[in-house]
Amino acid sequence: MVRFFVSKEEMTDSTMILSGENAAHAKVLRLKIGEEVLACDGDGRECLCEVSGVNGNEFELRVISLRDSVSEPRVKVSIFMALPKSDKLEHVIQKATELGACEIVTFPTARCVSRPDDKGLKKKLERWQKIAVSAAEQSGRGRIPKVTVLSSYKEALQLAAQAEKAIIFYEHEHATTLRQTLSAGEYRTVSLLSGPEGGFEETEIELARQMGMQVCTLGRRILRCETAPLCGLSAVMYDSGEF
Amino acid sequence: MVRFFVSKEEMTDSTMILSGENAAHAKVLRLKIGEEVLACDGDGRECLCEVSGVNGNEFELRVISLRDSVSEPRVKVSIFMALPKSDKLEHVIQKATELGACEIVTFPTARCVSRPDDKGLKKKLERWQKIAVSAAEQSGRGRIPKVTVLSSYKEALQLAAQAEKAIIFYEHEHATTLRQTLSAGEYRTVSLLSGPEGGFEETEIELARQMGMQVCTLGRRILRCETAPLCGLSAVMYDSGEF
Repeated sequence: MVRFFVSKEEMTDSTMILSGENAAHAKVLRLKIGEEVLACDGDGRECLCEVSGVNGNEFELRVISLRDSVSEPRVKVSIFMALPKSDKLEHVIQKATELGACEIVTFPTARCVSRPDDKGLKKKLERWQKIAVSAAEQSGRGRIPKVTVLSSYKEALQLAAQAEKAIIFYEHEHATTLRQTLSAGEYRTVSLLSGPEGGFEETEIELARQMGMQVCTLGRRILRCETAPLCGLSAVMYDSGEF
Repeated sequence: MVRFFVSKEEMTDSTMILSGENAAHAKVLRLKIGEEVLACDGDGRECLCEVSGVNGNEFELRVISLRDSVSEPRVKVSIFMALPKSDKLEHVIQKATELGACEIVTFPTARCVSRPDDKGLKKKLERWQKIAVSAAEQSGRGRIPKVTVLSSYKEALQLAAQAEKAIIFYEHEHATTLRQTLSAGEYRTVSLLSGPEGGFEETEIELARQMGMQVCTLGRRILRCETAPLCGLSAVMYDSGEF
């Protein structure tokens, strides 16, 4: 079913009018009266609607029912990824959204090569958030993952450490597996933190440990920086019973 | 440690000379006498070597020990992916190699849009195999996954069905999870088969069932055709105790 993300103010229990990009999208799709569509608030609530009026660029939807989104995972997984080079973060945002991440957070570390200035970052952030919206629509998410940029690694650790399972992936960790960490008790929130192309410095791992993160391996093969978070996310979704 | 893939004939227990692209790569890396490197046969065996001679473009390696590769996963996972559009298969080959796949097989299905001719396919296959070699080197694999093109979906099913866990992912399957399928008994070989952009036709799923494939869901979100196999592969590696 076609899915539109609307603002919370637009969500109603009677009728709504599609506006802006949603209206343009509806026109491209040639929505017809009687078709069922979903209007989601991007925060886990959605309206099942029927197209009740089409007039040029104007599409009116009659709300049939309001419900919690049925496609959101039971566990909230936050992806914390050190700022990578080129368009790798775009890739991760798109894929992590499909795979069910609740947010994507990026931040600098010692070995990050990419150091955009504030202006460049603001533009990128807009672009990143749009990618999340588009991936959420296509994959049928009920929630749009928020993309956030933090200014330091320490800030990222502080935030990540708040999850019930706060995990950092490190290629020189060989003993502790993700499975061991996940199997030690129930969980509803997970943070998965991973490094840039050049990996973490040892002092960064030490700091993570001190701040309560569990250092885990993702196996005996070296994963690229854009592969690691998606591999970890897939495993957490599997472990928590999503598929 | 730097890793070179050499032919089985080059593997020896005394000394070997790096040739062709390996020699060029060694030059770029400025290998010095005394450095340790790995020479792998791409099929699970590897030599731990010491650089024993450098003369312009010639690099001589003294073999210290010959052993089974330590970085190969315990379970052999074959990725069967319907031929996608544009460069998505390249992406999947690279990532599946990192994640530990033992082979990548592609084939046409009813809804495949990409239909390269024999000549185009031959060129692509060379390129695909190179991507696998390069990803295997970078991720520290002991085995280079073989990339194969089959001429029909039925052929793919016949081959995929030979694995102990022969799984096909289908977005309209909601009951059977990957976990249920994997947890029913031990396994050493897995096939993960997934469709093109437009998904499978129902008759194709029926045929897969008849040929012994287990139809599974990857969760309530619709994954892109290039995300599904990597998500499934990550989950199988996790399930089989790799991380």
